[in-house]
Amino acid sequence: MILASEIAERIGAELRGEDRPLERVAPLDDADAGCLSFLAAAKYRASLSDTRAGAVILAPAQAEGAPGTVLVVDNPYLGFARAAALLHPPRRAPAGVHASAVVDADARIDPTASIGALCVIEGGVEIGAEVEIGPGCIVRAGTRIGAGSRLVARVTVCEDTVIGERALLHPGAVIGRDGFGFAKDGRRWVRIPQVGRVRLGNDVEVGANSAVDRGAIGETVIEDGVKIDNLIQIGHNVSVGENTAMAACSGISGSTRIGRNCTIGGAVGMAGHLEIGDDVHFTGMAMVTRSFPEAGLYSSGVPAMANADWRRNAARFRHLDELARRVKRLEAALEPAAADGDAPEPSGDA
Amino acid sequence: MILASEIAERIGAELRGEDRPLERVAPLDDADAGCLSFLAAAKYRASLSDTRAGAVILAPAQAEGAPGTVLVVDNPYLGFARAAALLHPPRRAPAGVHASAVVDADARIDPTASIGALCVIEGGVEIGAEVEIGPGCIVRAGTRIGAGSRLVARVTVCEDTVIGERALLHPGAVIGRDGFGFAKDGRRWVRIPQVGRVRLGNDVEVGANSAVDRGAIGETVIEDGVKIDNLIQIGHNVSVGENTAMAACSGISGSTRIGRNCTIGGAVGMAGHLEIGDDVHFTGMAMVTRSFPEAGLYSSGVPAMANADWRRNAARFRHLDELARRVKRLEAALEPAAADGDAPEPSGDA
Amino acid sequence: MILASEIAERIGAELRGEDRPLERVAPLDDADAGCLSFLAAAKYRASLSDTRAGAVILAPAQAEGAPGTVLVVDNPYLGFARAAALLHPPRRAPAGVHASAVVDADARIDPTASIGALCVIEGGVEIGAEVEIGPGCIVRAGTRIGAGSRLVARVTVCEDTVIGERALLHPGAVIGRDGFGFAKDGRRWVRIPQVGRVRLGNDVEVGANSAVDRGAIGETVIEDGVKIDNLIQIGHNVSVGENTAMAACSGISGSTRIGRNCTIGGAVGMAGHLEIGDDVHFTGMAMVTRSFPEAGLYSSGVPAMANADWRRNAARFRHLDELARRVKRLEAALEPAAADGDAPEPSGDA
Repeated sequence: MILASEIAERIGAELRGEDRPLERVAPLDDADAGCLSFLAAAKYRASLSDTRAGAVILAPAQAEGAPGTVLVVDNPYLGFARAAALLHPPRRAPAGVHASAVVDADARIDPTASIGALCVIEGGVEIGAEVEIGPGCIVRAGTRIGAGSRLVARVTVCEDTVIGERALLHPGAVIGRDGFGFAKDGRRWVRIPQVGRVRLGNDVEVGANSAVDRGAIGETVIEDGVKIDNLIQIGHNVSVGENTAMAACSGISGSTRIGRNCTIGGAVGMAGHLEIGDDVHFTGMAMVTRSFPEAGLYSSGVPAMANADWRRNAARFRHLDELARRVKRLEAALEPAAADGDAPEPSGDA
Repeated sequence: MILASEIAERIGAELRGEDRPLERVAPLDDADAGCLSFLAAAKYRASLSDTRAGAVILAPAQAEGAPGTVLVVDNPYLGFARAAALLHPPRRAPAGVHASAVVDADARIDPTASIGALCVIEGGVEIGAEVEIGPGCIVRAGTRIGAGSRLVARVTVCEDTVIGERALLHPGAVIGRDGFGFAKDGRRWVRIPQVGRVRLGNDVEVGANSAVDRGAIGETVIEDGVKIDNLIQIGHNVSVGENTAMAACSGISGSTRIGRNCTIGGAVGMAGHLEIGDDVHFTGMAMVTRSFPEAGLYSSGVPAMANADWRRNAARFRHLDELARRVKRLEAALEPAAADGDAPEPSGDA
Repeated sequence: MILASEIAERIGAELRGEDRPLERVAPLDDADAGCLSFLAAAKYRASLSDTRAGAVILAPAQAEGAPGTVLVVDNPYLGFARAAALLHPPRRAPAGVHASAVVDADARIDPTASIGALCVIEGGVEIGAEVEIGPGCIVRAGTRIGAGSRLVARVTVCEDTVIGERALLHPGAVIGRDGFGFAKDGRRWVRIPQVGRVRLGNDVEVGANSAVDRGAIGETVIEDGVKIDNLIQIGHNVSVGENTAMAACSGISGSTRIGRNCTIGGAVGMAGHLEIGDDVHFTGMAMVTRSFPEAGLYSSGVPAMANADWRRNAARFRHLDELARRVKRLEAALEPAAADGDAPEPSGDA
């Protein structure tokens, strides 16, 4: 239980109304007197008079005349994130190594770190202060994990990976698998040894069952503050710039370089060896087959429609080039002068 | 070994021909005298005279004059499913806790339940009658698992998850990861504590390496009878209605609500905060960017074609709006009266 | 450290220039005197004069006048793959069973095999010579694993799987899950027991967090030399022919048969019950809804573009069939004879 006044102070908000003890967060319409809630947008302001929340975080523009206890802050969503972290601190596992963990004598583990049940920590591993390795994690030889990082459970970190501070790796994540690189010997594939590694910066997050492959030669690099959701594939020698975020089910092919502060929607696919600039944003399911060096919002795909309509339209797509040529012929027949030159030919470069 | 007559009785079929002992199921063209097979569709009826199967399940319309031993039932596919379950009962692990499992003293485990090798069962967990937890599973604090559920192997269930009865969770599934929620502080992402949970109903199935994230606040809900295939992502606060089935590789973004009895084809992507009604069906790879409240069959995507054709057509797609405008101009030039008003402008809302 | 001359001999290259000791591979622009590098394509030839690499692998056409020590071979990329394997041999775990592994008394494990920490090996399992089972793997009852195969770490192999020689399975892979097969009982789904198995040939690779489901009846078959990347789903009763390679995030639905020597780009989706011939190649994100029996390169999808353009074009796609009909009407009005018959109607079969 924390007083509203203390929360206000710690998140830099102004308290208006009487002080109250708060114990958890809840949405406006499901809150009781012990709850802290927040007003995300002006359109929900009507809910404010009905809520039973003990206190509400909101923006200055909404605070005027608001009933009850309010915490006024410029960015209420951010204020809420911080307040929620105060009311709901992560459960910390006790420092020390669980008796069932298998830890190599040559691993260096900070005494404030926690190693959970049935973990495997191999030789040459270095684990920093207050790191928490949850149950069932495997940390292979030569890996370094920076202070305050957390491997939630059943994370696999392959050899020689470098993980920064305050990283958060979710169950099933696989960091540092040998990348998918082969040479052809006739029809057979011959594996190319993947002698590079993975380097994750500070404050990086990798979601459940996502995979980040090690470099073929050199590093796969995930810079500080990058957030990777669940079921995402990052190929060898990819680099992802600071604070870029990727939603679930996306795949980035090898050697593609993504800039800073990008957002990659869900199920986006990127070809290999591309250059994506800073502040580039892709909507969900975008098909990225060329470089996008310029900041901007990019999209592709055909949104779902009634199946009967789709069947007809998709069949026409197969003849779209021909349709365009027919339109050009019509223009030439009808208005020979105007049509001349203004009908773009396909570049052949889709 | 079970007699055909006993199977007939237990699946509600009528036995015609002589009774026989049966020991396993097989397809018509690969069966011997100990096999039970089935005739799925009229078009395969010719196989019936060639099969060496000991008995065949089929529909009344196919039974007339069928040779050998047949089990006649209205829905042969369903009858086969039930008969196969009789002939091939799941291997049951012995009740009790494997010596290598790490079980918190504060977990409550029904004596008829089975806890496999190298499992981790944390404090406050409740495990019901005849639950089977296969090897390598992790069940974190406060989770409840209902009677008859089965975690096949290496399943991770995060804190405070509620799982109904007869659930089936496959290897690598991750239930209850903290969802992907952040507020922005300048360019940096600040994690919003995910204080909700996951609730799975009865008879729910979650496939290999799929992930169901916990609610940000409140629950992510998977209702009774929902079947989720492999490599599927379910975002925080999603709800999925009874008996909806999803094929592999799909992703459902946060807060989307899917109705009952829907089928979601493979690799479908859904944006967040959508409302999908009951009896809505999406074909594979559909891109779902808006709500679909009405029952029906919906599709999107462009089926594969020869690369040379695709390059030309995809290049034309980039100019499709312009092409439509050119057609409108042609119509106006050729038939000014008729064209007026009937050429739809793009809504801007794809 | 290996002499350049020895590497040349073992990869079938001709050594020109003085012999040198080499200890690792590196790219041309990041190499020092102890490094072996390679020249992949003529366009990088300029780098050759700047590199500090101890030796460089290159093709005969590039060797003329090349400075320093070179290893000349017809296929430099293949030569490099082999040389890298000599300089960077995989770390081999020691033979024997780790004390923390849980091994059934009824498992047969070759004395040269290595079973890592916290593995579970169930009854009836057979593990061949020099197999390496890394930490945290689960090998369920009745599985057979051929000589020289390697399960890197945390792989799950379900009951009765057959794995050939020299297979390589990456962390999180799930082999032999019960496939996704159900019959309908009214609105409820009734599971059809999956009584088949998975058979992987020799030299098969399965990536991190990929899943290969067992046959419903009969086998799911992955032939010799098939390479499967990360996060890929292979449905029940699929068969994949020799030396076919699949990039990450793809999904193959049940009973589809893929030929030999195919390449499947990333995030490709295939419907079920298709026939894909030999030497068929799909580019990334292709949507495969029909059989492709003929060798060739096939594609689909709409590459990403500026969001504003995409919105307009995607909106037009919804009316593409109507647009084509309007063009046909224009053609009929303008050139009635020519238009007659040459405007294709949609087949209704997208």
